[in-house]
Amino acid sequence: MKGTFIAFEGIDHSGKSTQSRLLSNFLAENGYQLLKTREPGGTDISEEIRKILLDLKNSKMTAKTELLLYQASRSQLVTEKILPALENGKVVIADRYIFSTLAYQGGGRGIAKEEVKNLCLFATSNLLPDFTFFVDINFETYVQRKNFSRGKLDRIESESLDFFRRVSETYRNLVNEFENFYVINGNREIPEIQQEIREILSKSLKF
Amino acid sequence: MKGTFIAFEGIDHSGKSTQSRLLSNFLAENGYQLLKTREPGGTDISEEIRKILLDLKNSKMTAKTELLLYQASRSQLVTEKILPALENGKVVIADRYIFSTLAYQGGGRGIAKEEVKNLCLFATSNLLPDFTFFVDINFETYVQRKNFSRGKLDRIESESLDFFRRVSETYRNLVNEFENFYVINGNREIPEIQQEIREILSKSLKF
Repeated sequence: MKGTFIAFEGIDHSGKSTQSRLLSNFLAENGYQLLKTREPGGTDISEEIRKILLDLKNSKMTAKTELLLYQASRSQLVTEKILPALENGKVVIADRYIFSTLAYQGGGRGIAKEEVKNLCLFATSNLLPDFTFFVDINFETYVQRKNFSRGKLDRIESESLDFFRRVSETYRNLVNEFENFYVINGNREIPEIQQEIREILSKSLKF
Repeated sequence: MKGTFIAFEGIDHSGKSTQSRLLSNFLAENGYQLLKTREPGGTDISEEIRKILLDLKNSKMTAKTELLLYQASRSQLVTEKILPALENGKVVIADRYIFSTLAYQGGGRGIAKEEVKNLCLFATSNLLPDFTFFVDINFETYVQRKNFSRGKLDRIESESLDFFRRVSETYRNLVNEFENFYVINGNREIPEIQQEIREILSKSLKF
């Protein structure tokens, strides 16, 4: 693979999408060719799956069905978009990847960790990021930002506070299980966080 | 489980749906409460997944995505419909179940058999039918019936003849791997086939 695969992870309101956008702009200014992806979605088929996953009317969806739909969406995205981009030397910046599934469907929904992990590796044919930035916020920050935000919540965003606590804890434990998994303190100011991410990337990217 | 779970399997034009319908009518006349299912589909969520799976415009769908979507549809169907029906003492008659996935996505698409099997058992939480009738037709019968049939073909039905040959062969080998898996010669007349199915069922159903 000639390209570089960077994933951003974290719960909603962690600031991961802001950090991902700032990094994308910075790398583009430095001459890198980029592919930005967002999960679930990112291909025609994956976007159709996204609609099913996030639709509030699908309240009867079981944890296993949800898990399998996320994998289906991701599997299509990896084959159709991510792998070709990496082969063409691009930097792929993914807003969510398998670690979301481990945290949300494993930690959040309580499906056995090994089952979730095996399924993730199957769906992605073992493709792991070169860098994963887990933007970690403490619970108080989460509650503050959630109360401050507007707009209608989707099916996942509507989950309980305890759900998001379990998700966060599972994310934090992934650092012991995967290489190149960086826990980034997301309670700080935006530029400070971005600076740390760029320093880590400077090991292998030039800018 | 108080109910009885019967699955019909086979390639398109095998006559499995005709046999399934005749059996359903017969059992209903004999006082049995029935749940009839059709895969992919059978719940609101599964029907949405069905649309994605069979839509001809989704020609870029990878074999793994297809496999995962079938499992998502089935997982929802098992939890939401099949298990409650069996618990209520009903006879469940399924038009396609995990053996279709083993035959089509395993044999047809070439995904490793053990991977497919593990995924099927995960999605269904190991629920296997009490009786599986694989209605087997020879290749000449298949080609004749296919040429005779009308209507627009969906994404799976549009596959090559060689694809269906691999699917049939995989189905035939499943008899060595699963209990209560019956290979029914589907090249005979409809009433003769139905008679054989009823004789097998008379071991555990009363009519």
